Amino acid sequence: MTPPLEFYFDFSSPYGYIAANRIDAIAARHDRGVSWRPYLFGATFKLTGGQPLVAYPMKGQYSIHDFARSAREHGIPFSMPAIHPLATQTAARAFYWLDAQDSGLARDFAKSVYSAYFVDGLDITDPAVLTTLAGSLHIDGARLLAAANDDVWKQKLRAVTDDAIGVRGVFGSPFVFVDGEPFWGADRLDMIDRWLSRGGW
Amino acid sequence: MTPPLEFYFDFSSPYGYIAANRIDAIAARHDRGVSWRPYLFGATFKLTGGQPLVAYPMKGQYSIHDFARSAREHGIPFSMPAIHPLATQTAARAFYWLDAQDSGLARDFAKSVYSAYFVDGLDITDPAVLTTLAGSLHIDGARLLAAANDDVWKQKLRAVTDDAIGVRGVFGSPFVFVDGEPFWGADRLDMIDRWLSRGGW
Repeated sequence: MTPPLEFYFDFSSPYGYIAANRIDAIAARHDRGVSWRPYLFGATFKLTGGQPLVAYPMKGQYSIHDFARSAREHGIPFSMPAIHPLATQTAARAFYWLDAQDSGLARDFAKSVYSAYFVDGLDITDPAVLTTLAGSLHIDGARLLAAANDDVWKQKLRAVTDDAIGVRGVFGSPFVFVDGEPFWGADRLDMIDRWLSRGGW
Repeated sequence: MTPPLEFYFDFSSPYGYIAANRIDAIAARHDRGVSWRPYLFGATFKLTGGQPLVAYPMKGQYSIHDFARSAREHGIPFSMPAIHPLATQTAARAFYWLDAQDSGLARDFAKSVYSAYFVDGLDITDPAVLTTLAGSLHIDGARLLAAANDDVWKQKLRAVTDDAIGVRGVFGSPFVFVDGEPFWGADRLDMIDRWLSRGGW
């Protein structure tokens, strides 16, 4: 078994959303799976001296234009949410609770969180929104919220985030490892595809 | 005549160097020319709150890895210069002096400046380096240096830079306009190619 691609993302990241819509198909073309790993991207800002893209003068405006253009190229629905960025720890903890039971279901949940935010403009920090999303996947919403407030899953998310940033050098979203090779950004997905075709270069 | 692509870059920018090696061929595939426009990228840092990529923790290390990988993919020679970034106004002013006489020769000079810095590791702030580069293109090095210190070309570079940043919203290198559509980054060159093929989307 070749190891899966490791896909780090934050639920508040527009480029993470675009990558979430494309990465499984790219990996599948090369008989590879994908390990989905939401983490708390905001924690990197302190370390890198960065801030959310949309907060930069000039770059912010360009980015909002580019999010929509990048999505449109691939036929991915996208609408810039009114509230952006937002805190994503509840959704991410719920993801890991699901992931420990059923990674496919966790991925479906992640996709539905992303769509809720970047297509329907819903507030994914709102517990009621998350329970509705859970319900449509036949997940018990009350249990999901309880898990998201449970120390076990708080610690899990913290451990993933600390490892990503402190050990693996992850600083953006999406951030993908292919056999240890790091790729930052949705604009690297085509490069990942070529990297997998050529076996690197 | 369809208007040329407008290619903004800074001589100190590794991704600008990669774009300089690819953009003419991409444009030519679509029967388009390219207007080369060196500008002073550093002036955008104050406005965007940014800094040179290599100065960021984590992102800096990744970027140095990615410069080489991005160049290697396209068979472009690349060696990270020991002194980086550096000030590029002398080379840029000399470019515009040449450009007013012969845009093809100015482009050849730009390519030789980029190669001197990113292949041979030469200090392109050094007048002796620039006169040697000029000489190999049969350009009078003494006249080139005199032009680079002449107020006319100082003002020209300032005007290009002010217009790029203040009017057109340019904030990075490379930064390309295709019929007014902005594309930031060497990783957008393939998107530019597809954009030209599809006539936008």
